[in-house]
Amino acid sequence: MRTIKFLLIAGSLLATLSSVHGADKSLTFAKPDLNAAKTLRERGLADNTAWRLVESLTTEVGPRSAGSPGDAAAVAWAKREMQSLGFANVRTMDVTVPHWVRGDAQFAVLSPWPQPMPVLALGGSVGTGAEGIEAEAVMVRDVAALNALPAGAVKDHIVFFTNRMERTQDGSGYGKAVGVRVAGPSAAAALGALGVVIRSISTSDDRFPHTGALRYRDDAPRIPAFALSNPDADALERQFASGKPVRLRLWSTSRDLPPARSANVIGELPGTDRAAEIVLLGGHLDSWDPGVGAIDNGAGVAITMGALHLIQQAGLKPRRTIRVVLFANEEFGTSGSRAYLAENQAEADRHVLGFESDFGAGPVWRLSSRVNPAQLPVVDQIFRALAPLKLARGGNEAGGGADLDGLAKLGMPVLSPDLDGTKYFDVHHTANDTLAQIDPVALRQSVTAYAISAWLGAQYPGTWEKVATPKAPRR
Amino acid sequence: MRTIKFLLIAGSLLATLSSVHGADKSLTFAKPDLNAAKTLRERGLADNTAWRLVESLTTEVGPRSAGSPGDAAAVAWAKREMQSLGFANVRTMDVTVPHWVRGDAQFAVLSPWPQPMPVLALGGSVGTGAEGIEAEAVMVRDVAALNALPAGAVKDHIVFFTNRMERTQDGSGYGKAVGVRVAGPSAAAALGALGVVIRSISTSDDRFPHTGALRYRDDAPRIPAFALSNPDADALERQFASGKPVRLRLWSTSRDLPPARSANVIGELPGTDRAAEIVLLGGHLDSWDPGVGAIDNGAGVAITMGALHLIQQAGLKPRRTIRVVLFANEEFGTSGSRAYLAENQAEADRHVLGFESDFGAGPVWRLSSRVNPAQLPVVDQIFRALAPLKLARGGNEAGGGADLDGLAKLGMPVLSPDLDGTKYFDVHHTANDTLAQIDPVALRQSVTAYAISAWLGAQYPGTWEKVATPKAPRR
Repeated sequence: MRTIKFLLIAGSLLATLSSVHGADKSLTFAKPDLNAAKTLRERGLADNTAWRLVESLTTEVGPRSAGSPGDAAAVAWAKREMQSLGFANVRTMDVTVPHWVRGDAQFAVLSPWPQPMPVLALGGSVGTGAEGIEAEAVMVRDVAALNALPAGAVKDHIVFFTNRMERTQDGSGYGKAVGVRVAGPSAAAALGALGVVIRSISTSDDRFPHTGALRYRDDAPRIPAFALSNPDADALERQFASGKPVRLRLWSTSRDLPPARSANVIGELPGTDRAAEIVLLGGHLDSWDPGVGAIDNGAGVAITMGALHLIQQAGLKPRRTIRVVLFANEEFGTSGSRAYLAENQAEADRHVLGFESDFGAGPVWRLSSRVNPAQLPVVDQIFRALAPLKLARGGNEAGGGADLDGLAKLGMPVLSPDLDGTKYFDVHHTANDTLAQIDPVALRQSVTAYAISAWLGAQYPGTWEKVATPKAPRR
Repeated sequence: MRTIKFLLIAGSLLATLSSVHGADKSLTFAKPDLNAAKTLRERGLADNTAWRLVESLTTEVGPRSAGSPGDAAAVAWAKREMQSLGFANVRTMDVTVPHWVRGDAQFAVLSPWPQPMPVLALGGSVGTGAEGIEAEAVMVRDVAALNALPAGAVKDHIVFFTNRMERTQDGSGYGKAVGVRVAGPSAAAALGALGVVIRSISTSDDRFPHTGALRYRDDAPRIPAFALSNPDADALERQFASGKPVRLRLWSTSRDLPPARSANVIGELPGTDRAAEIVLLGGHLDSWDPGVGAIDNGAGVAITMGALHLIQQAGLKPRRTIRVVLFANEEFGTSGSRAYLAENQAEADRHVLGFESDFGAGPVWRLSSRVNPAQLPVVDQIFRALAPLKLARGGNEAGGGADLDGLAKLGMPVLSPDLDGTKYFDVHHTANDTLAQIDPVALRQSVTAYAISAWLGAQYPGTWEKVATPKAPRR
């Protein structure tokens, strides 16, 4: 990873030098377009459209997990709001989504020291049956430690994974920790375990368990899996530290219902002379159900819609079409972005530049990218237009996000105004994901950064080249 | 209130001056006693006994509301821990406590925008019956605003109280806001309301509803009452702001069981020449049930026990007896302190000085008191011994606390090392009251402040005089 980064930086440097020495005029933005960026900055930092949108979405719709009544309400909300903002070509694209229902869940330590603890089923978990599961628990750090246990060690036991997520600004701690949630349940089931409990993939010491999708393997039984908040995971570790057997009781009514209909919601600001080229602003519309989906991902909805609205309200006419896509069901299998890709297979190449907003409500602290290294000087120019927003210059290994994954794999360049993730995982996927977690000032700054970079991305006088290098693994 | 404070401060000044000018030697602490205070400071700031106690109580007992299995476990725990710390005369005093059971609760907005919201029943609330309650809601700020409504305005409605608590270091915001919780349900019921929902008496924007006792009047029907977290109360206010009727559904299985047995747990460090005089260190052992009672009041248990242990471990022999009393059921009617007072009626005058610890885990930021104004110079001397702990000098209107109320009304002087309450009401009475909310450094400082002031209180060469002034209303 480090070597790659170094090569990319070196490449960027060379490209910058050649640009500074002025070879190719087509790499330089036109003065009026840069002036327009200034206008966007002034207007954006004073514009409350995004706040109004996320307030409305969280208040009038609230939880909207795939297939739920809130999901349908969110689709209707998004279409209505795009129309009322005056977006062009507002439309929905049907998407079939899995429909998992959380139901209720209970967790208790039975011995050595009986205590109930608040718990959330992991997304997609099967239920326990009405009688629940009672068994002795085995504590391990992660999947590697599980697999290193002696044979039979977890058979007929409940496995408790203790691995704790690290707090980082770029969210990289999540990627390192989340494997336990995704793969832990089947890894334990393959060894004969009856159930799984994980320490939440969360940086918070508040008592909010953190949900999120697991992925069952086909070669192992489906066993129920739950998350405990960090303070409860600490308390459970102390029960183990007693040296006495730790006996747990798990119960939940989680279940799968038949697949349901949802939709991607799409709106545009049509381009002028290069209208066939699309600059995509994407974010998912669905949320997990315990909270109201304010930072994940009402904020992303508000940032992308707010950015497009800002450009439009400034009276700007982009050369390329800027398209907002609110994807269905990112959380439980990225159904919406897969459907979008399938539907746009023939037109995938028209998506010349992508932005994703799915990392909270800002502020933007860095501009990263994933472009053809020869075009890093273009990113540098965009970065300079963003400079008054106090950004750092990131590398060229941006992942985009889960919903851009398919297009990025096809070589679509990505610009990433990176949202500050320092506190994101305190709240993400918990009941605490409410409007109170959003700072309106940071939100306005984020909208502004997205609007300026999308605008300049749409005005770039050259041709956005495909990215040939393999895409880095998803964050 | 201000006038009283001014008079007390003026009195203190005069008394200090007369002391400085050296009239009464008996008002001055002996040098060895002041040196011992230094020893306590050095040892206390390095001693982890209190942390170990609150960790043990929250891990091995956890929730312990009056009458619950956790309550009985806590009594056994406290007796065992006092014995193992080597306290003298360790004993329990039976207390009959009310036994209210929370059960489950659900809350949903049905219209205009359907959403479930997490909710807690107020302590003592009746349940809704299996079918729940559905009705249109009326929003009012507080009880005064409720009573100012036109006749019939809330009949057959649910009343939503919106009053928000103010954050303060001394906790005074709580007293101003809590009336809605205590008196709101019966006030609404007297006007024909079917149920009550309050904005939590909490300073937090996290999604933790905050429980606490209501008080039903005899002249009004008992109707169910619930608390919403601040962000949900905000969201509900936005539903009202739509101008459309707001319809709610309430459901809970809260109920009363027959009164149960609990106990005060008592341990001492016996005095020497003035052993009949008691310096009381009190705190309640029970907790509300949604959390594990770390800051309320595991910390108070740990501070009082830790302070006594510190004095004992330093090999100090107090002149007066220092007694720790862990009171049963403070939260739901102060049963334990009432029983203590009833049992000690004849010996009430032997309680010459009281300390209560029921305001979190510190740090101590101020030394307040409620002593005979002529003895304020004694408090000043104790304050000087505490100076390296960086305290402010408070006034002479300390309330003590709920459990000292009865003795204070009989004139017992009170010393109050005031615990910093700035963040206390973010956590108090919520599921988030866990060990993670306690800072071990602040806890050690608090134990040290209690130990030094209890020690000097026990060594005071004069006679602690009764307080004649009426006790200020409970915070």
